[in-house]
Amino acid sequence: MPTGGRYDAGIHALPVRVYYEDTDFSGVVYHASYLRFLERGRTEFLRAVGMNQQDLHSGEAVAFAVRRMTVDWLKPAVMDDVVTVETRPAEVKGASLRLEQRILRGDVVLLTADVLVAAVSAGRPARLPQDLRDKLSPPPSV
Amino acid sequence: MPTGGRYDAGIHALPVRVYYEDTDFSGVVYHASYLRFLERGRTEFLRAVGMNQQDLHSGEAVAFAVRRMTVDWLKPAVMDDVVTVETRPAEVKGASLRLEQRILRGDVVLLTADVLVAAVSAGRPARLPQDLRDKLSPPPSV
Amino acid sequence: MPTGGRYDAGIHALPVRVYYEDTDFSGVVYHASYLRFLERGRTEFLRAVGMNQQDLHSGEAVAFAVRRMTVDWLKPAVMDDVVTVETRPAEVKGASLRLEQRILRGDVVLLTADVLVAAVSAGRPARLPQDLRDKLSPPPSV
Amino acid sequence: MPTGGRYDAGIHALPVRVYYEDTDFSGVVYHASYLRFLERGRTEFLRAVGMNQQDLHSGEAVAFAVRRMTVDWLKPAVMDDVVTVETRPAEVKGASLRLEQRILRGDVVLLTADVLVAAVSAGRPARLPQDLRDKLSPPPSV
Repeated sequence: MPTGGRYDAGIHALPVRVYYEDTDFSGVVYHASYLRFLERGRTEFLRAVGMNQQDLHSGEAVAFAVRRMTVDWLKPAVMDDVVTVETRPAEVKGASLRLEQRILRGDVVLLTADVLVAAVSAGRPARLPQDLRDKLSPPPSV
Repeated sequence: MPTGGRYDAGIHALPVRVYYEDTDFSGVVYHASYLRFLERGRTEFLRAVGMNQQDLHSGEAVAFAVRRMTVDWLKPAVMDDVVTVETRPAEVKGASLRLEQRILRGDVVLLTADVLVAAVSAGRPARLPQDLRDKLSPPPSV
Repeated sequence: MPTGGRYDAGIHALPVRVYYEDTDFSGVVYHASYLRFLERGRTEFLRAVGMNQQDLHSGEAVAFAVRRMTVDWLKPAVMDDVVTVETRPAEVKGASLRLEQRILRGDVVLLTADVLVAAVSAGRPARLPQDLRDKLSPPPSV
Repeated sequence: MPTGGRYDAGIHALPVRVYYEDTDFSGVVYHASYLRFLERGRTEFLRAVGMNQQDLHSGEAVAFAVRRMTVDWLKPAVMDDVVTVETRPAEVKGASLRLEQRILRGDVVLLTADVLVAAVSAGRPARLPQDLRDKLSPPPSV
């Protein structure tokens, strides 16, 4: 099995390997490839709290769509790197969810992202089910 | 409007610009990016003969799925290149279609592909409608 | 030739066709695909003002790397859509460039992005050449 | 760490998770995404026998480029699937390598590929180093 990462102390961490497909001719990872990594992190984070994207899209279930993202590219990753995608629920609202994400190589932060995802059902805004809100609520600050 | 290419004398030709997203850290176009170019060529070829992929996927209409492909990578394309994707119907059967495709830079052939696409409807093999078969039939050999 | 778009009255506009490769199983365009469209827009914008990415990466020339981006996804595009990528230089600094970008379908704005790109040379921050700064300076506000 | 798979009895097996980015609006995995999976399999296979792509591309080392591929798409994978990419060295020549690859979900074969990769050094055909040929030689047939 590929690893789905680990959810611990309110932060989900997913290791990701950089392959050819992720790079561009400038020699480093293509800037939009990091958004694919972030999305893998969010998917595994949601799976870790019991939500499966495929299920979410079938039936009347609630799915998530990215609404807003602010990304800072700080340092590049390169071919063969193993990076870590961190995902932390930062704010849980009635119909949306704000996540703080980072991509690191070891202790070095390569990218930070502030991501707003909205709950949708049948293409329309939807409320997060209460049990999800409970699960996704950030732990009390430490 | 972006060009949809030109269908002339049994060959459809679509010009495609190479961008960052298509390259990898080896400095040239990533091998699988050419398959995206080929698919754009097939989509525009089908549009040129009156078939729209979005329509095909809605309702009971017939869509196409790639079943088999043999690809030869001969020479690389690089960032900023404009290449031409050629698509030629080579064999029209009851439920499938064989296409010969090439990617060229000027007169230089960069890639050749022999592609078998199957008609599907609601996920199952389907027959090509007669009028499509008529349109797609290759012209008498010259 | 594929169109490189048009630079007029301080706004560059590039039409882009949506293909299979750009969509995901939710039925609409994958969120990160829009960043590829934005990058095509920036590349054609830079070409329109006389800068070629391939040249920029060879020799000692100055290239651009994305440093920061805020993106709002407002409405989805779907397969076969033709969308327009607008790029407008918003702020020209000594070593960086801020661009305002939008993606529209007809008059409907699907996405807005605020993009900061930094000049780099041999992997290090670099100053924009004076003639580039002159070209890229936004027109006096209207 | 993400798994790099396992090389056992002459077959390398790499598990791969299907994410949003891999699918298209037809509802299943985009046909060219499988080529990215195959390339990940080859990269991890080469890593398992001691060859690192990043190293290969730097200095005078030998790298690999895909020259020819025949792919059969048999059944589709969908979002959230875990598939296995199998890579088996089938023929080792002086300057090239033929690999047989498959993608499976459980015991079900989704795709088969016959792949010819050529050794290149500084952009030119190169001979495989003897120790590599030794390592890559297929085990005696069973």
